[in-house]
Formats: sequence, structure tokens, C-alpha cells
Amino acid sequence: MEEFIIRPNPSDPRLTQRVTGIDQTGAPIETSVTVERPLTLFLNGQEIVTMMTICDYPEYLALGYLLNQNMLRTDDRVTDIVYDDEIETVVVRTERPTDYEQKLKKKTLTSGCAQGTVFGDLMEKFEDVRLSSTARIRTSWLATLTRKINTAPSLYLEAGAIHGCVLACEDRPLVYMEDVGRHNAVDKVAGYMWRHGLTPEDKIFYTTGRLTSEMVIKTVQMGIPILVSRSGFTAWGVDLARQAGLTLIGRARGRRFVALAGEERIDFDLAPGEGSDEPTSHRRKGSRDDDGE
Amino acid sequence: MEEFIIRPNPSDPRLTQRVTGIDQTGAPIETSVTVERPLTLFLNGQEIVTMMTICDYPEYLALGYLLNQNMLRTDDRVTDIVYDDEIETVVVRTERPTDYEQKLKKKTLTSGCAQGTVFGDLMEKFEDVRLSSTARIRTSWLATLTRKINTAPSLYLEAGAIHGCVLACEDRPLVYMEDVGRHNAVDKVAGYMWRHGLTPEDKIFYTTGRLTSEMVIKTVQMGIPILVSRSGFTAWGVDLARQAGLTLIGRARGRRFVALAGEERIDFDLAPGEGSDEPTSHRRKGSRDDDGE
Repeated sequence: MEEFIIRPNPSDPRLTQRVTGIDQTGAPIETSVTVERPLTLFLNGQEIVTMMTICDYPEYLALGYLLNQNMLRTDDRVTDIVYDDEIETVVVRTERPTDYEQKLKKKTLTSGCAQGTVFGDLMEKFEDVRLSSTARIRTSWLATLTRKINTAPSLYLEAGAIHGCVLACEDRPLVYMEDVGRHNAVDKVAGYMWRHGLTPEDKIFYTTGRLTSEMVIKTVQMGIPILVSRSGFTAWGVDLARQAGLTLIGRARGRRFVALAGEERIDFDLAPGEGSDEPTSHRRKGSRDDDGE
Repeated sequence: MEEFIIRPNPSDPRLTQRVTGIDQTGAPIETSVTVERPLTLFLNGQEIVTMMTICDYPEYLALGYLLNQNMLRTDDRVTDIVYDDEIETVVVRTERPTDYEQKLKKKTLTSGCAQGTVFGDLMEKFEDVRLSSTARIRTSWLATLTRKINTAPSLYLEAGAIHGCVLACEDRPLVYMEDVGRHNAVDKVAGYMWRHGLTPEDKIFYTTGRLTSEMVIKTVQMGIPILVSRSGFTAWGVDLARQAGLTLIGRARGRRFVALAGEERIDFDLAPGEGSDEPTSHRRKGSRDDDGE
């Protein structure tokens, strides 16, 4: 499968905006900033939620959100997806009638960058998921993967203040999505995977965001056995990863990383000193640099 | 006013957890991770929301959340705040009867690290706020402030994967709050300010998080004229800051920064080369380092 089947388009004028300001010397500067737009999601005529998004892939975002919220089942047949950029709505229609009136009443604000996820529903499938026992990750893949991701053209390099998520196979980034909220980026990847029938068992999921409970839950429910982040962990994220048998790798910089769950899937094929794409000078674990989001 | 009236307590055993794992060589390591807990907020017997928080200051979080959601008015009299760590609830009681049944129905997921904020309500007060025209910020204060904040003992340095917000006066950090979600950290500062009657006009607000719309809105509604972040901007955040006349300073590292709104409040009293607490080697604007959250 080719690398970067789908990726951000930093040159898309709708996604960034040039603004003028000054720097620390008072000198005038011009810089790019990320554009966020409201997008209201409907499922079969029921208003589900309004999200703030860069809105580059509203259809994938809509599908992924509904899948990760367990409002759309993997065996559902989607008859129609209509995005209207004028009224900033996306409507998903399914063969199966749906009604989530009750679900929509309960609101739990998850930690970090969550989207006020309805946590009870997020957990619905969690216990039933069996992750691949044969999946592996080599330390050499990890080093190559992070280098490819960090050097790929992105809205991050153009404007900053954005999250990235990548679905990868071995050392090849396949699907790269960015958004203002890291959960939008995850959901867009989920939507793309479902729409195009990508299998999760042999994949690696990479995020710039922290490894919080809801990030672990989404990865597990997507059926992906390995989750990697350049950022840090929360305790609940680690607990859930261990419960689910998810391989949880954080603080991944060049060849450095820490694994706190599912270590058995890791092959250490990289000799010390090899494959680094960053100065290997040791950082404090709490270095601000570790805060992917 | 003394520095760090209130600050994180990294040695509090409830806030971090020691976990074992392995590093990139396969060698066993032990590290600290942040602990997140659910906290359900009630206002006069009405369940408002469940938040994920490190739960170090549940009372300030509850007050600040209600204030920033415009569910609590600055002139309200709070008769009682009861936190129960067993059932993980905090109950706020006010003299004025409240009913936010309608408000709670509408859910908008704001960008970045927002908490599924009810955006319409967040905006309620925004247009009416008049920020101080006399407030100033010196580049020398900014350099000193960021150095003091980055070197202060924190959960960030202990475990990473956490956000920090600081209320400052000139170059003195006064109130330092951390939490898994940056909005919890903001809300805890707001709660502390209201509870202890701290005036906003002469203050500076510092956040590790990105300068998104909701971060700007909260700062403005808190009446603080200057907002500083080590992270980047979103376009809507910049627009709102300009509308409100908020001084918006981002990508602040040592003596480097970019100001995109309210530049007139900045005094450039720092000679080039002075006051840096970080290597001044120029980074790409999109360097992963710029992503405070």
C-alpha cells in the first residue's frame, strides 16, 4: 500500500489564514494561523453535535465521530452523506433507523483534548475488543515512521496549533489527518478506514496528542493493537491500555520512547545510536516538548 | 502580593502514580504519570456535568466552571460548596435559585482542548466586556515570567501530559493551576480569583495551551486584558482577541514571541539578547515544540 494515501494539504487556502502582527522586537511580521469552523452533524434528521474543525474532510469526520461514539455500527449501511459548506452542516443517513435522544442527554467531559465525549457510550464496545496477538512493532519502524511524519508537509509546519494522527503499516504512514482538536483527527482516520475498508489488526496508530483514557479507548475500539505518541501518559490511559492488551508507546522522539503497556509486541532491532531524527541529548520527561497537545 | 500564593503540589501522592515500563532499549524503567478522576458537578441539586480532572482543587474548579459558563453570576452569593471524594461529586449552592435545563440540552464541541463547552452561553458576556486600556506588559516581565513558570515545581516536570495556567501581575506568578484539560486549569484560576476577590484589570494570564477561540473568550470574560501562551494561534482566536481588544501573545519562548492582537499594551524594554531562558536558536513556527497542548 502506497505511503500517504491521504494527507493534509497545507496549500489549501481555506485551512490557514495569513495574519499580521509583531515579534519580540516590535518588528512587523506576517504569519499563518489555522482556521477553525463550526460543523453541525446530523444523523437521520437528528442533530447530534456541533464540532469545531478545520473542515478539510467533513464526511470522514462525521462517519468517524458516529463510529467512535457507537452511534454508527460497523455493519450499518450509509445511504447518504451530504456536506453543505454554506450552512456548515453534514448529514449522515443510514438504512437502519436511529434515535439517540437519550444518549445525547448525558454529557461527560473527558480529560485533555476530549470533545465532551459521552463516555458511557464510548466504553460500550471496549470490553469486547480482542486486539491482534501477532501484531509487531520494530524500533527501527518507529524511528523511520516518526521521521517521515515530522518531515511531511503539514498544517502543523505551516501554522502550528494543530494535532496530527497517522494510521501506519510497519514504517509506512498511510492515512495522515490533522485538526484543531486531536479527537477530530482520530475520528477522520476512523471514518476513512471504515469507508475504504482498511483493516486495523496490522496497523499502528500515531498521535501527537497525549495518551489519555479516551485516546486509548478509541484506538482499542478501532481494533488497532499499537498506539504511539510523542506526548505523555495519563494513569487511566495506561490502566485501560493494560486491560485491553494495547501496546502503549509514549514520549516517542527519534529513537527514544517509553512503553507502559503491551511491551511484548515490540522488537528491538535498532542498535543504540541508530535511526535518530532528533538530537539525542536527553530531555526531562516533563520537558514542555513532550506535550504534544 | 507574594509569588505563587497557590501552586501545584507535585509531591501530593493522589496526583501522580508510579508505573513501570521499558525504554527504547528494552530496559525496565519506572516513571510518573498523571492521575485523572471523574468529578460530577451539581448546582443547587441540578447535575451540570462530569469532568475529568486531577481533582486537586475541586471547589475552585466547580466555581470557575460555573462562572465561565455563565451559570454563576459574579454577584451571586454561594451559600455552600461540598466536595465528596467518595462519590466524586462537588455541589455548589447559591442564594439565587438556578435552572439550566435548557442550557444543558445544547452541546457544542469547541476546538482544541475544549470541554464540550456550551458555546452560545460562553459568548453571552463577551460583547459587553471592556478590557483595561491602561494595562501594560513589558518584554522583560514576559521573559522573567516564563522562566519562573518553567522552573517552578509542577506536575508537568514530574509527570508531563498536563496543562498549566498562571495568573500573573507584572513579572510575578500569583496563581498557578495545572490539570489534564487546559480548561480545567483556566476554570480553577477563575474560581480562585472570584473566591478571593482578585482584580483582573492589572493581571496577565499565561497558558501552556493553544490560543483558540474559547481560551480567548474565557480570558476576556474574566476581564484579564493580556493573554500569553507558549503555543500557537487559531484564526478565530485572533479574530475574537482583536474584537475584544485583548492583547494576544503566542509562541512565547524565553524572549521570543509573536503578538497578533492588542500590541499597543506591549513595552519593548528588553535589549536584544537579554533575558532569554532558552536557546535562542530560531525554531520553525510549526516546530512541535510550539504545541503547548
